[in-house]
Amino acid sequence: MTMKRGPHFYPVILAGGRGTRFWPLSRRRRAKQLLALDGKHTMIQQTVSRLTALASPKNFWIISNGDLRSAIVRQLPKLPSKQILAEPAGRNTAPAIGLAAYLLLRHDPDAVLGLFPSDHVIADEKTYQETLKIGIDIAAAGENIVVLGVRPTRPETGYGYIEVGAPAPSQSLRVRRFTEKPDADRAAEFLQAGNYLWNSGMFLWSARTLTHALEEHLSKTASLLAEIAAAFGTRKFDSSLKKLYPRCENISVDYAILEPRSAKGEAASNIFCVPADFGWNDLGSWTALYEHHSAKKPTPGANLVLAEKSFALNATGNYVHAPGKFVATVGVTGLVVVETDDALLITTLEHAQDVGKVVKYLDENNLDKLT
Amino acid sequence: MTMKRGPHFYPVILAGGRGTRFWPLSRRRRAKQLLALDGKHTMIQQTVSRLTALASPKNFWIISNGDLRSAIVRQLPKLPSKQILAEPAGRNTAPAIGLAAYLLLRHDPDAVLGLFPSDHVIADEKTYQETLKIGIDIAAAGENIVVLGVRPTRPETGYGYIEVGAPAPSQSLRVRRFTEKPDADRAAEFLQAGNYLWNSGMFLWSARTLTHALEEHLSKTASLLAEIAAAFGTRKFDSSLKKLYPRCENISVDYAILEPRSAKGEAASNIFCVPADFGWNDLGSWTALYEHHSAKKPTPGANLVLAEKSFALNATGNYVHAPGKFVATVGVTGLVVVETDDALLITTLEHAQDVGKVVKYLDENNLDKLT
Repeated sequence: MTMKRGPHFYPVILAGGRGTRFWPLSRRRRAKQLLALDGKHTMIQQTVSRLTALASPKNFWIISNGDLRSAIVRQLPKLPSKQILAEPAGRNTAPAIGLAAYLLLRHDPDAVLGLFPSDHVIADEKTYQETLKIGIDIAAAGENIVVLGVRPTRPETGYGYIEVGAPAPSQSLRVRRFTEKPDADRAAEFLQAGNYLWNSGMFLWSARTLTHALEEHLSKTASLLAEIAAAFGTRKFDSSLKKLYPRCENISVDYAILEPRSAKGEAASNIFCVPADFGWNDLGSWTALYEHHSAKKPTPGANLVLAEKSFALNATGNYVHAPGKFVATVGVTGLVVVETDDALLITTLEHAQDVGKVVKYLDENNLDKLT
Repeated sequence: MTMKRGPHFYPVILAGGRGTRFWPLSRRRRAKQLLALDGKHTMIQQTVSRLTALASPKNFWIISNGDLRSAIVRQLPKLPSKQILAEPAGRNTAPAIGLAAYLLLRHDPDAVLGLFPSDHVIADEKTYQETLKIGIDIAAAGENIVVLGVRPTRPETGYGYIEVGAPAPSQSLRVRRFTEKPDADRAAEFLQAGNYLWNSGMFLWSARTLTHALEEHLSKTASLLAEIAAAFGTRKFDSSLKKLYPRCENISVDYAILEPRSAKGEAASNIFCVPADFGWNDLGSWTALYEHHSAKKPTPGANLVLAEKSFALNATGNYVHAPGKFVATVGVTGLVVVETDDALLITTLEHAQDVGKVVKYLDENNLDKLT
């Protein structure tokens, strides 16, 4: 508790995603962040747990949706349930974090918000907390925007990148530019160049800075959010949220604020990147989960079988999830097989990124029980 | 019914095998012959059904074991249940068919026995029946032994072969020699030579011929079987079977009688082969089952998925059995995946022959619930 940053730090956790790549385990009402993919606690429980060293439970806000809200309330009984919000319609990250900023500004003019995804893994929690402390202090010191940038370890094409420039106080770096997901050649260049970091999706800024930025870059949405926030705590809040939120622009915070702001030049934009080195993993697919777990094993390319019992005969490097069953793997390698009460997924570590397309098929064919 | 061979033909069906290569569907108490692997009737029901054109239900005898007998009685309600016998201990084919011969000889001195496996597929039942009629007539005509030989279509190493010689009456051929399962080179030679046929395991001979052969080649076992048969219909039968049958030699009819008999030379041995050309398939593994079903499909290399519903994305040539589930296959080929209430098998069409080793592992580790 010695690490607590005092009463002004407010974690805002985005938990509205579906995580369709973890189908058939992930479902509309049991999204990836509600699954215990790494250990016995769910991803969102772990997210909250590692932030409680920096903020008291009453400071947490969660933005989710109507399908997931009640499960989240059950999974996080220590958090104030009125601060677990359900978007009436998905509007991407800018309105979500913006709403939190207006709500907090009314409550605490000195509020510093941290924006956190709810479904990532952090190996080294102590370093994570130390890194956040640095970011919180920079965010609290003025009209600054702080992004945590992860040092790339491979030419990943699935993430956005942050190009960094001049060193700035507190081990941070000025941000020169945000880039979209690159192609393979560009990703290799970024890795080679050394001054590109992965955009972790974790941001820190004061409520004041964020509301100013919204008013500058997204003024109509800013007004709608301010109006919703003004109704918080009254009987009109739910109807106000339901009526006004869907009218907000459907846009990411990166695209709405960070990219235009960084276009001002690294000195004028006041965007800082704190390099993060705490074993970050976004567990983007069954393959990432396999690699995450197999890295902990003494033998590389192990068979990872979550089952009642199992037997492998000339079978290695497979990920099998079939709790309660006896699983036999014979002469297979590189497979991903996931079984639930109503579904069976059979794919490979190489093709697991396409699992979202199965959910797309189910959506298009109205097979709602399976999504 | 015009094809009936009169009252003297008695089909004897061997149904004591486990069919472990169809695990996890096949179990000790639900062996391969009790499964509906091809259509809605089980393998043993199909075996009986295609023979009822040649013999009345009261002429059937089935030799099985204590694990399977009651299920067989349930599956074949028209057969006299006292003719569905359970071996107290597995003693291979010679004692099983020998017991039937002694039982029938007491009942009908002119009995002709047909020995039939209970778990094979026959595509052309009419030709099958015509072929058997030829064999029955040869068997009834004297001290003759008739074997149905299947024309080989590939250099199969999993079957025994019959080397045939001089033509004999009724489209049959003299048998020169029975050979054990060959290696790949020998199997290729056999296929090339043209005078080798697969041993189908289907034999025809009179009860008299068979008992004589047993007395000549396996005299101690013959006495034991005669003693058991003498007790049939009395209260002593069960205890006699239980006490004496396990003392019979554990040996196949091929090894005990056919090989030594054929060593006498093709003229003296009186063994005849009737070439069989009726779409025989022993469905030896999941792979054989896949090929059997996919051959009926318009598209070669189809995905065969037995499930509630399914979706394939860049996935072909897989066999999946998961009734009641939604099955998604993504980017996989040549796999065999079979799901039951308590087990999940994941293998390939190439490795499915090794599935018996899973059952061996389960046996060795006393995982009896799974076998």
